[in-house]
Amino acid sequence: MAFKEKVLEDLRSFLPDEALLLNEEATSRQAGGLHTEEPVNAKLIVRPKSTEEVSKVLSICNKEKQSVVVHGGLTGLVYGTRTFPDQLILSLERMNEINEVDVVGRTMTCQSGTTLQNIQEKAEEQGMIFPLDLGARGSCSIGGNISTNAGGNRVIRFGMTRDSVLGIEAVTPDGAILSSMNRMIKNNAGYDLKQMFIGTEGTLGVVTKCVLRLREAPKSQNTALVGIEDFTSILKFLKHIDSGLGGNMSAFEVMWKSFYDMVTNTLQENSLPLKPTMPYYVLVESMGSDQTKDEEHFEALLSEALDKSLISDAVLAKSEKERKGLWALRDDVEKQAQFGPTLMFDVSLPISHMEEYVSKVRKNLNQHWDQSHFIVWGHLADGNLHLVVGVGDLKSETVRKIEESVYGPLQLIGGSVSAEHGIGLEKKPYLHLSRTNEEIDFMKSLKKTFDPNGILNPGLIF
Amino acid sequence: MAFKEKVLEDLRSFLPDEALLLNEEATSRQAGGLHTEEPVNAKLIVRPKSTEEVSKVLSICNKEKQSVVVHGGLTGLVYGTRTFPDQLILSLERMNEINEVDVVGRTMTCQSGTTLQNIQEKAEEQGMIFPLDLGARGSCSIGGNISTNAGGNRVIRFGMTRDSVLGIEAVTPDGAILSSMNRMIKNNAGYDLKQMFIGTEGTLGVVTKCVLRLREAPKSQNTALVGIEDFTSILKFLKHIDSGLGGNMSAFEVMWKSFYDMVTNTLQENSLPLKPTMPYYVLVESMGSDQTKDEEHFEALLSEALDKSLISDAVLAKSEKERKGLWALRDDVEKQAQFGPTLMFDVSLPISHMEEYVSKVRKNLNQHWDQSHFIVWGHLADGNLHLVVGVGDLKSETVRKIEESVYGPLQLIGGSVSAEHGIGLEKKPYLHLSRTNEEIDFMKSLKKTFDPNGILNPGLIF
Repeated sequence: MAFKEKVLEDLRSFLPDEALLLNEEATSRQAGGLHTEEPVNAKLIVRPKSTEEVSKVLSICNKEKQSVVVHGGLTGLVYGTRTFPDQLILSLERMNEINEVDVVGRTMTCQSGTTLQNIQEKAEEQGMIFPLDLGARGSCSIGGNISTNAGGNRVIRFGMTRDSVLGIEAVTPDGAILSSMNRMIKNNAGYDLKQMFIGTEGTLGVVTKCVLRLREAPKSQNTALVGIEDFTSILKFLKHIDSGLGGNMSAFEVMWKSFYDMVTNTLQENSLPLKPTMPYYVLVESMGSDQTKDEEHFEALLSEALDKSLISDAVLAKSEKERKGLWALRDDVEKQAQFGPTLMFDVSLPISHMEEYVSKVRKNLNQHWDQSHFIVWGHLADGNLHLVVGVGDLKSETVRKIEESVYGPLQLIGGSVSAEHGIGLEKKPYLHLSRTNEEIDFMKSLKKTFDPNGILNPGLIF
Repeated sequence: MAFKEKVLEDLRSFLPDEALLLNEEATSRQAGGLHTEEPVNAKLIVRPKSTEEVSKVLSICNKEKQSVVVHGGLTGLVYGTRTFPDQLILSLERMNEINEVDVVGRTMTCQSGTTLQNIQEKAEEQGMIFPLDLGARGSCSIGGNISTNAGGNRVIRFGMTRDSVLGIEAVTPDGAILSSMNRMIKNNAGYDLKQMFIGTEGTLGVVTKCVLRLREAPKSQNTALVGIEDFTSILKFLKHIDSGLGGNMSAFEVMWKSFYDMVTNTLQENSLPLKPTMPYYVLVESMGSDQTKDEEHFEALLSEALDKSLISDAVLAKSEKERKGLWALRDDVEKQAQFGPTLMFDVSLPISHMEEYVSKVRKNLNQHWDQSHFIVWGHLADGNLHLVVGVGDLKSETVRKIEESVYGPLQLIGGSVSAEHGIGLEKKPYLHLSRTNEEIDFMKSLKKTFDPNGILNPGLIF
């Protein structure tokens, strides 16, 4: 089984050889994401250089009803780039040009295959930032960030990817080019069509170009790790520090004790920033305009929180090295390997239900297994928790039980089975826990309208 | 000509008398907005109390192909609520219940007929704010704000309405209830369907309920008026102050000399905050966390701007009274009445083209009229300008010439004929200047998909 021959013939009529990877050239690649062990199954990778070429590719595929899977930086976490032998891959890897940085209008225009890190660095050269930031920055493409509406570490301050995209050029499944390259923060001239391509996982069209909103670079950064005795105090501390920082809070990352233990249990106790005895740890960060004044203010807020017993201990990073050290703990998710095979989750839920939700998952796991590793941390202020569960194996029956333990309790409290990773193929069986039948039908009818032949990223989401 | 009798009969079967205003009860009302002189032409106003009732109303209308116009607070500025005698009005005025304020999750849930001011006040009772703010706050409804993706004074800091809406319940034209009442900042479980109802001017569905994102209330506010000698210095001052305030800037409102003269020419010169001799004035405001420290910092930034000659004069409000006085100047748009009949515009464009754009409009007006009043001000940092033009009359030929003078130059520079007011009926003839044929076709196909009978707010936008 393979792609349709007529399609290859038509593609060859206008694409140079280097744009086409065939058979082993394609299948020797890896599928990407957390699932790098899986090979590419499609036998043809098409790598256009321009929006016009993408348009021709899709137009041909649509005519021949050739199924297409879009590849960006391949750092997704929900099997959104998995392929089957009869599919064709449309890769944006050669569309990585930064077209313009408008220093006055504070925008950047680039092709969608550009990596997030290249965008960040280009903005920094001009004294600005592109605030979206996530671990995969070096490989992930802005097109993928847009298609999954990526989140990351600074959402509480700057929003999701959606909030930093001003304009989009996309190609719909029939090959039509839809250019909505708005460059203004305000534009209410009709429907905001770019929203159709943000967070829809490439099912309604292929993003080929975008206009991004840049911000002035912050001039100060203060980071602290605090220890907290109970969940209610976390919520009080969040209000205290967010309100006290008056718009400057840029991260509020909570680590349950299980997480802090996981990332510190190989370290000497005297090298730890805080003793590993507290039930919760919070990494809090501000970005402001004056290092000295902001640090004084930040420290005063922490003292006040100590006085009020909202927190029981705190350490403020006094150098860039210390700052990075605190973040390194938070980011050291790979330490989960010590627990053998594990599953990682990305869910969101109303903060007021969070403590009870974590207990419920713990209880569900205990019902199935006498012993399990259960690690919790997350961007709490966004309602976003990550969870790692390890019970010894990942047989399909085990996976199903773990997933049901984690996802099940979300339905009643209005939680989401995907906070920032998307649905892809992985979470499809659980979408109904977070969305009503009416919502899913509505999504399907949108898909049907814009991709009647169902050729583009078929089977993703629903 | 009137609404369909069968519709009234069916409505009476489940709605109480007070939900129906008939004939004179309807037509004695005014159409609202800037156009209050215009009466309601529809002979039936239906005022449901719940989402379920809205669903039944639309289901009946869809079956009978009865054209429906949705009414919220009637403060729109683009004739979006104008009716014809054969139409029926669906008014959300009785759906104004605030259902819940979640202090921990920092959200508010309410019906869409709730006024913006009620929402703001309810948030303030809890030490939080709902950051959307505009002049019509006392009358406009949150449903109207959502349908037009309203902007206002604090967009540079908090974004448009879109950025403060977490969840929406809407009824589609066939009467289906789509409940997407998400309460989290992050939720990537499938398509973000609420985007379909934000800024689409009620053409795809009727918003009946929403979940709004609240913020912690700022603890300091500093406001200054500065005078600036040339446009380039405005741009430099914007970068200086935005970067210097490190995330705390909440307004950057520019007034051309023509505007400052208009709002001050009846005042004694010694009562003016700044002499009326400068080409540009900027009202700049910050919201932070500590009144004393923030004021010192704000003042230092202004001194630095004076030293660097970015600004030539500045006055910092030293009391709430002075602060309100500065805003009163900025908000005194009604002073345009002194110029006789005028037209007011709301456009957006890349900031780098702004100076040249204003010159071009001036030139266009000069080609038609020896004398004209041409007043310019706006939310410059958002790319949003407001313009007032007065040439003595508002005959249709005059209006056309003025509109072409103002809108014409936007096309080449990627500007928008509507920054924050929407398109409605008023700007339809000019939509093509800001949107391509492909975009407009795409909008029409969305409309066709969700409203195949074209019963809901027909004729708006395109």
